[in-house]
Amino acid sequence: MKVICSKENLLEGINIVQKAVSAKTTLPILEGILIEAGENIKLTSNDLEIGIECCVDADVREKGSIVLNARMFGEIIRRFPDAEVMIEVKENNNVVIECENSMFEIRGLDAEGFPALPTVEKNDGIKISQKKLKDMIRQTIFAVSMDENRPMLTGSLFEYKDGRFTIVSIDGYRLAMRCLDPEEEKDTENAERKLIIPGKTLNEIAKILQPVDDDLYIYAAGNQILFDMGNCIMTSRLLEGEYLNYMSIFPKDHETKIRVNTKELLSCFERASLVITSEERRYPVTLDISDDKMVITANTEAGNVREEMKVDMDGKKLEISFYHKFFIEALRVIDNEMIDVYFTTSLGPCTIKPLQGNDFAYLILPIRR
Amino acid sequence: MKVICSKENLLEGINIVQKAVSAKTTLPILEGILIEAGENIKLTSNDLEIGIECCVDADVREKGSIVLNARMFGEIIRRFPDAEVMIEVKENNNVVIECENSMFEIRGLDAEGFPALPTVEKNDGIKISQKKLKDMIRQTIFAVSMDENRPMLTGSLFEYKDGRFTIVSIDGYRLAMRCLDPEEEKDTENAERKLIIPGKTLNEIAKILQPVDDDLYIYAAGNQILFDMGNCIMTSRLLEGEYLNYMSIFPKDHETKIRVNTKELLSCFERASLVITSEERRYPVTLDISDDKMVITANTEAGNVREEMKVDMDGKKLEISFYHKFFIEALRVIDNEMIDVYFTTSLGPCTIKPLQGNDFAYLILPIRR
Repeated sequence: MKVICSKENLLEGINIVQKAVSAKTTLPILEGILIEAGENIKLTSNDLEIGIECCVDADVREKGSIVLNARMFGEIIRRFPDAEVMIEVKENNNVVIECENSMFEIRGLDAEGFPALPTVEKNDGIKISQKKLKDMIRQTIFAVSMDENRPMLTGSLFEYKDGRFTIVSIDGYRLAMRCLDPEEEKDTENAERKLIIPGKTLNEIAKILQPVDDDLYIYAAGNQILFDMGNCIMTSRLLEGEYLNYMSIFPKDHETKIRVNTKELLSCFERASLVITSEERRYPVTLDISDDKMVITANTEAGNVREEMKVDMDGKKLEISFYHKFFIEALRVIDNEMIDVYFTTSLGPCTIKPLQGNDFAYLILPIRR
Repeated sequence: MKVICSKENLLEGINIVQKAVSAKTTLPILEGILIEAGENIKLTSNDLEIGIECCVDADVREKGSIVLNARMFGEIIRRFPDAEVMIEVKENNNVVIECENSMFEIRGLDAEGFPALPTVEKNDGIKISQKKLKDMIRQTIFAVSMDENRPMLTGSLFEYKDGRFTIVSIDGYRLAMRCLDPEEEKDTENAERKLIIPGKTLNEIAKILQPVDDDLYIYAAGNQILFDMGNCIMTSRLLEGEYLNYMSIFPKDHETKIRVNTKELLSCFERASLVITSEERRYPVTLDISDDKMVITANTEAGNVREEMKVDMDGKKLEISFYHKFFIEALRVIDNEMIDVYFTTSLGPCTIKPLQGNDFAYLILPIRR
């Protein structure tokens, strides 16, 4: 194998595929990046859960393939000047990498031993802009459960129905839901689809996605999903089974509703949480709502805090307590300036929604004081 | 005690004094910041090695003093909106902190128990610009020794002689020296002075110093040093004893001299170091200098690297090996575009100097291959 390509393009490809390189493994080949030179060069990584493949424009002088340690390969290319890089496989898998007056010789591994990515047929894909998917993942992933006893909840539901695309995460105490309406993406030819994507996969794909309007396609077959971003694809296993019927969790009506400024409420919760030190993490933050006023208090060994906010209020007055982290994490990802918060009783769930439409909903269970 | 001051000013003061708050201590009061309200308010921290005092403009309604946990106090003020903050000490050292619609009540500690900073008379000070001192520390501190068996070398020498101010660090294998000539700072009335400042103190003062031309004054008395930055001072113990006669370490002449581009040489060393993994950290990088060309090589189990550089050369050809980190750390702090490197023999020290003048000198011992 002998290829010549620009440092910039090569590094961009390496930075993407590095996200699926195994950090800890007993198989050295999984710490590597597979380089295949055909028409162009293709970089592949595979930690046996997630796989990434990326094409890089190159001048291929001699076809072939080799596996190089991802860390070493990445560092070498990163440190090169912005110029043409030449990679050549010599005898015994020795690889020479040259750029201007620098020359490296490192040991590669035989490409034969590299595990192939699962094949997923590109049929009946879901189309969505990279930026929108990146945002939707960021706005829901924090509510994915860490509890391996309920494996289904360690992933997020991707639901596609009548052109409406929804992501839902539930950890047993809260729910995060983000939707894209068919008004935004008119593509209703697809059949209904429900996929459960592992949280780890979502974290990695969110890092790869760029905040641009370019579309990507999501395909699924068997227990595999494929994200197709054009010259770069990512595959992952899916979680198998039936996800919770999340729509049944939302309360049908409410007793109290407030309209508040998102950032202002977030600041109040963040300050209230300062007296809740890590040893006291289950101390509640209490909301006391009456007469268009909300008083937020927390009282612990470390101190007492009291915050007062003006709110637009509908319905009954209410006193209710929450675990501060659940509110803070939801409020941090909401981009809307104002939100409506719907309460049932002091023991029932509350729901955060936009003033209009149903782009998102965050449901949080209260704490019994 | 009851004071009112702006959040911005108070936070600036807290951020400075927090650098001398004990991280790990069995004395809770050392995790605190002493607040004293007189004409203005004065914040003090003291970890018994370093002490910092900072004045903050305030409207003092009632004089007094209290100690507040630095982390909690800092977090509360940081999270407040940009507005007036009121701090009031109530009964039993309970402290109320208010800002707009937020109110905290936390427990303080009696100011009586807070250890006073050592007093250092402000006589015969050394004057230097904050920016210049900050730069000089950054350019020498990496060569301070970590070896507690030679306590003197765990600090840097501050030498003041005939108006020339010099900082020197030596760790037994290398030396870093940075000077300010009397041409730059004409203040020759001071007597000769030699102070050895602990590395930890230098790290902290470098963080506090701003990259501005404002002057600070350095005073010393007994085994204490005082950095006076106007509305903020820092004290520290000094290391006691006689520092090495560093001038005697520099070779009197050289056999080989090269003139090179600093960044280019740094890049070559950084790339060469890529094959020197942590397990192989004592593998050398070898320089082969002849015919206005320098070939830089490193060969380890991880791979081989070869770099070639054009250099302006004077004197004999030479092959010499170094521990890569010593060159990299020196080259990273040199702001000059070009440098001269003087070599004696392949077993003798080399010295990096500016093309003109004697603003700096970095001496590095080679490795015997």
